[in-house]
Amino acid sequence: MLLTFSTSNIISQEKDKYMEITKKIVGSALREQKGYEWLRQLCEIGPRLSGSENSMKAIRWAENKMKDLGFEVWLQPVMVPNWVRGEKEESVIVESEFFKGKELKILALGRSVGTDEKGITAEVIEVQNFDELKVRQNEAKGKIVFFSRAHDLGTVNTFQGYGDAVNQRSQGATEAAKYGAVGVLIRSVTTKHDNVPHTGSMNNYVDSLPKIPAASLGFLDADFLSDALKKDPNLKLKMKLNCRTLPDILSYNVIADLRGTEKPDEIIVVSGHFDSWDLGSGAHDDGGGCIQSLEVLDLFKRLSIKPKRTIRCIFYINEENGVKGGIEYGNYADTTKEKHIAAIESDRGVFTPEGFAVTSDSLTLIKLQNWLPILEYAGTEWIKAGGSGVDISQIKNTQALIGFVPDDQRYFDLHHSANDVFEEVHPREMELGAAAIAMLAYLLSEEL
Amino acid sequence: MLLTFSTSNIISQEKDKYMEITKKIVGSALREQKGYEWLRQLCEIGPRLSGSENSMKAIRWAENKMKDLGFEVWLQPVMVPNWVRGEKEESVIVESEFFKGKELKILALGRSVGTDEKGITAEVIEVQNFDELKVRQNEAKGKIVFFSRAHDLGTVNTFQGYGDAVNQRSQGATEAAKYGAVGVLIRSVTTKHDNVPHTGSMNNYVDSLPKIPAASLGFLDADFLSDALKKDPNLKLKMKLNCRTLPDILSYNVIADLRGTEKPDEIIVVSGHFDSWDLGSGAHDDGGGCIQSLEVLDLFKRLSIKPKRTIRCIFYINEENGVKGGIEYGNYADTTKEKHIAAIESDRGVFTPEGFAVTSDSLTLIKLQNWLPILEYAGTEWIKAGGSGVDISQIKNTQALIGFVPDDQRYFDLHHSANDVFEEVHPREMELGAAAIAMLAYLLSEEL
Repeated sequence: MLLTFSTSNIISQEKDKYMEITKKIVGSALREQKGYEWLRQLCEIGPRLSGSENSMKAIRWAENKMKDLGFEVWLQPVMVPNWVRGEKEESVIVESEFFKGKELKILALGRSVGTDEKGITAEVIEVQNFDELKVRQNEAKGKIVFFSRAHDLGTVNTFQGYGDAVNQRSQGATEAAKYGAVGVLIRSVTTKHDNVPHTGSMNNYVDSLPKIPAASLGFLDADFLSDALKKDPNLKLKMKLNCRTLPDILSYNVIADLRGTEKPDEIIVVSGHFDSWDLGSGAHDDGGGCIQSLEVLDLFKRLSIKPKRTIRCIFYINEENGVKGGIEYGNYADTTKEKHIAAIESDRGVFTPEGFAVTSDSLTLIKLQNWLPILEYAGTEWIKAGGSGVDISQIKNTQALIGFVPDDQRYFDLHHSANDVFEEVHPREMELGAAAIAMLAYLLSEEL
Repeated sequence: MLLTFSTSNIISQEKDKYMEITKKIVGSALREQKGYEWLRQLCEIGPRLSGSENSMKAIRWAENKMKDLGFEVWLQPVMVPNWVRGEKEESVIVESEFFKGKELKILALGRSVGTDEKGITAEVIEVQNFDELKVRQNEAKGKIVFFSRAHDLGTVNTFQGYGDAVNQRSQGATEAAKYGAVGVLIRSVTTKHDNVPHTGSMNNYVDSLPKIPAASLGFLDADFLSDALKKDPNLKLKMKLNCRTLPDILSYNVIADLRGTEKPDEIIVVSGHFDSWDLGSGAHDDGGGCIQSLEVLDLFKRLSIKPKRTIRCIFYINEENGVKGGIEYGNYADTTKEKHIAAIESDRGVFTPEGFAVTSDSLTLIKLQNWLPILEYAGTEWIKAGGSGVDISQIKNTQALIGFVPDDQRYFDLHHSANDVFEEVHPREMELGAAAIAMLAYLLSEEL
């Protein structure tokens, strides 16, 4: 439970003013649903994997949209990794008395090497985790290691269940390579038990170990494979991945400013990451977060609200497989004469707002919590210490780094998969989030 | 913001015990998703309008399900209204230079009289509200009054927007009849701007006034009609409703008990209403709320949690058009020697839990709020005074009447329409709600 201080640092008259502004912002966001319409347009372009042609189309779309809305726009150049999936992956059981010919739905993991034309064909060893793999290391040589641990549905916070399962994705290939495995399959890390595989980034390969290909399995096919291995432990699976990493390529962070009226060199960042995986349309992850950030600026503009400090909307590139955009902007922030006061990131889907997670000193946190009587009108239930966002955490010396936290019950149904499409975004949920972020950004500008 | 007291009335050792139980309940609900599966089965039966054959099938299904799960079951007889829609409604513009032949999507409102075989054909007067109708009363005679005020999307709480718009549905026919109108159309009260009409109950007709038929229009067709009337104010519309009210018919509340170990005659009610409108499958309104209530009992049973007081699950019949089930149970509660300690109702959709709305004295409210450190694990963010539920409010002399309040952003997209189907229910959202209600019911049993 949140303990709040009954004495607010916002005097009563100011509170009335802020409440009036909050109501305007919420009303405009929910009634006009402008950002929702922009997200529809963005999603029509398709997914936006870093370095892809589509990502460049989307960057141009964003640049034009920001200019049309009347903002100053800066395309900040960033060199990004250029990992490409290539032709669709194949996986089939090629030797088995019972299961021969069964095809499995797989997706290469981001950063994985591909196989050669023939693919790899090997027996499969199923393990739950790295400890079990270590114990059974002698069985792994020459085989495909199948990490089959599922996202635990029993945790209320789905990010916790995700965190508990995701190391098989990030480190599985490295761990398996230690013991001479030739490939890795993981059960998709997802809360939805369909057969749509969920990808995501692996850590970089370790130079001292062989680089073995890694892919995720649809949840139902992971069940199938697990059952099949019980009946036929010696079945042989073929997997063929056509992915590869091309040389780094030029891309951009897309940045729009609403210039502050009194302290234009003091910056409040509102942001999301513009790249997505190459499936679905990256609607929740993180097209929606970007569009919310842009709508923050537009809400101020269309409602003639003039913040004292500059509100800067950043669409970071390459969060998914490199964070090069975040790092590049962090480098810029280190050297500019502008002062970065605070930064907000929306990268947990665009569902109904719950609260904000803050990295700051404790006095700043209390200050923010004292704004709750205003912020709660826009759906913010709490402000808690701890956590912010991958991209904004590259900005040093701010007073507060803040992650927007919406309801997370549906997020990992969609995350990193073909399920992450515009149709899964609810206009009111998304717009209420934009309003919540706008109001926090405004208070950060005026009161921090 | 919620003010809570830092001194809890639950001593530390008890808190640990309750936390352990909460974790078990949440884990079992989210992992096993049993209630979600039962809701699927229930929805396959179809909608459950009071008095309908389907409603009786569903009542038998519920009785069997409760018995299969091992509970004592009581079918409490209730006479309910038997309003039937009959053949599909028709509405078409029959005279107009521009719009002749255009069909409009309409749905009779619950309790409306039908038209005769020929239907009614009349000019249309569009008004926003009863005040405008009063001012323009001379124009209403012999016409169809079209109440076109929309649910205001700008309120954060969608129940507020609903409340602001719904009087045209509940009282529109009576108000229009005062001025000699021959029929009523209303813009569907909905947050979703598709063309699916949303029905709902009218108030009873007033005996001193003519009983005129009333129907709701799909939102897009309401826009169409509004535009058409601007171009051709004298267009004539035909509407034909085939609904009628048959004599009251026997139905049942379905009631299951988990007998208390120490105080079996002290009752904690968990409940929803089992009837629905005759469209979609009443998944959120309120099949889901019923199933959550049943799952509360089953969670205790399957986890061997033995409450001191009796936990009673009630599926009320006829909330939508009569509240006869609620009233009947209230009468029973007045006369039984059992003591009703508290009652919880889930009838706001089965979305992610937010909190509980409580009608009680202030000391009881504080007691409940002191449980928040436990309840928040199951997703409960707050406990506030005010409001409970239509059915449980028929039970007198309880210590607390409590409404379960989930996120409401999506509810009125579905409410009372063909959109309210199983596919709109998310398993984690629903199950987390069941867990939240279970934990509150348990604390009410042990600590109130």
